[in-house]
Amino acid sequence: MSKFIQITEVGPRDGFQNIKKPIPTDLKINIIDQLIKTGINKIEITSMVSPKAIPQLADSKEVIAYVLEHHKNITPFVLVPNVRGAQLVYDAGIRNINYVVSVSPEHNRANINRTHQESLDDLYKIRHEYPELNITLSLATVFGCPFIGETSIDSLLDIIKFSDDHEIKSLTLCDTIGVANPFQTSHILQAISQKFPLMDVGLHMHNTHGMALANMMAGLQVGVTRFETAVGGLGGCPFAPGAAGNAGTEDAVNLFNRMGLQTGISLERLLEVVKIVRDHIEPNLLSSLSRARTYSEFDFCSAKI
Amino acid sequence: MSKFIQITEVGPRDGFQNIKKPIPTDLKINIIDQLIKTGINKIEITSMVSPKAIPQLADSKEVIAYVLEHHKNITPFVLVPNVRGAQLVYDAGIRNINYVVSVSPEHNRANINRTHQESLDDLYKIRHEYPELNITLSLATVFGCPFIGETSIDSLLDIIKFSDDHEIKSLTLCDTIGVANPFQTSHILQAISQKFPLMDVGLHMHNTHGMALANMMAGLQVGVTRFETAVGGLGGCPFAPGAAGNAGTEDAVNLFNRMGLQTGISLERLLEVVKIVRDHIEPNLLSSLSRARTYSEFDFCSAKI
Repeated sequence: MSKFIQITEVGPRDGFQNIKKPIPTDLKINIIDQLIKTGINKIEITSMVSPKAIPQLADSKEVIAYVLEHHKNITPFVLVPNVRGAQLVYDAGIRNINYVVSVSPEHNRANINRTHQESLDDLYKIRHEYPELNITLSLATVFGCPFIGETSIDSLLDIIKFSDDHEIKSLTLCDTIGVANPFQTSHILQAISQKFPLMDVGLHMHNTHGMALANMMAGLQVGVTRFETAVGGLGGCPFAPGAAGNAGTEDAVNLFNRMGLQTGISLERLLEVVKIVRDHIEPNLLSSLSRARTYSEFDFCSAKI
Repeated sequence: MSKFIQITEVGPRDGFQNIKKPIPTDLKINIIDQLIKTGINKIEITSMVSPKAIPQLADSKEVIAYVLEHHKNITPFVLVPNVRGAQLVYDAGIRNINYVVSVSPEHNRANINRTHQESLDDLYKIRHEYPELNITLSLATVFGCPFIGETSIDSLLDIIKFSDDHEIKSLTLCDTIGVANPFQTSHILQAISQKFPLMDVGLHMHNTHGMALANMMAGLQVGVTRFETAVGGLGGCPFAPGAAGNAGTEDAVNLFNRMGLQTGISLERLLEVVKIVRDHIEPNLLSSLSRARTYSEFDFCSAKI
């Protein structure tokens, strides 16, 4: 049996939060339903943050309630930035959270208005007050920060040590602004696995500079098998309009399928969801497969070299 | 000193031939001038084919004459499909040609209206009638064909053996329709280097499915240091309008720069050429860097994760 690749769909959170026009809750729920029909079994369905900060996700409780009631066989994740968020999602019945901390202190403040110490204090509290919550630590700006440029690998390892000390053994390294390169990805992953060999490390790569799949390959080569991606390549930088967002789920599934690896996801069905997203949410998608007129491997193209 | 990566710019050939609206020769020449100012020293400047087949390149003799007169320090390449083309470019003063053969017989016929045998017969004649011509064999559809799907690695190796037997020691593997994956790229390159260890092999990857940079990384890892790319990501599939074309030269230069490898090309100047291409040739470029509003590494984006 070939290697299994775990795709976690983050479009309903990282994708939707970057869409300015309000998306009706019914449409969000419909897209989540359709995504699950493709075989996707882990989805970051929303974020538990102040509606003032991200109005688009103000319906998080409704989305959570719907998913918990209708999709008992998948694992929904919710992004939370603090104890308050964790408490709310716990009370709503969620048991898997992505807790976000930026490796760049400046970005942590800009993103969630907290110091590193405040973020780690809250992580400690969540870990001990909600022992039933499975926490994945989502580390932002691991590969670069819009405010300070390259971030410190020592800071990264310090945060991971805190996580390890408190028995949080799942991390996602996020290339928040899409500037990682494959050598850097490989280097950072190896530094982590040397110090924390039992840590489960996933990647969340943005495609701003077109390197998302190359970076995911670099990760795969050093043992990463868990990747966060967004349908249609939604998401990305509010200050880089027109640039690509997250690695597109369909592009990632196609990559792994073509290499003979298993994701458990139907590309054909996924491309139907891409159409829904394009028709109802964002007409100008930038994932690669969403740009090709048809999607079969060979019939769409008879280029001359 | 870090490893040097040889970028060969193919925009003026592979890019321009896919543009429907006629591009004035002056504009082509201006773009070639500007590309050379970035530090690019190898350019496929045009193709010597029938104007009926590719009207956009009907001015190939003028472009060749201009480049030979004004840019004595760079290496201009011209794509040719037959003896007649080789004779014309030789008489025009060109000494480096890319001779194109498709690994897929069906594509060879559709692309240049020849059987494999006819193509190889002509290659033999060119090799022996024009010994001063440096020939690089451009192999189309190495990774997939629009007509037959996957192409045969045995056919590929047979063509390379013919090339090797006739002392043609430079090849470019072309992913004509952009369907290669990194495992396949690595596998094919290793099969070639096992049988023909002295062959110089380059890659020409299209980004139709978003995998061009990942495939180039796979190549780099098994020793490839020569890559063909097109400014702005021009080129691509006439039957896949809206899909990405060649790997963008600026995306490739950014990839290699970020990894600390040398290309000798100024990214800043290159991005100025991208603007000219966008303003005068194709407003809807799909290279990644052409989509970002500004191009510095970190100042354009302050995304939330």
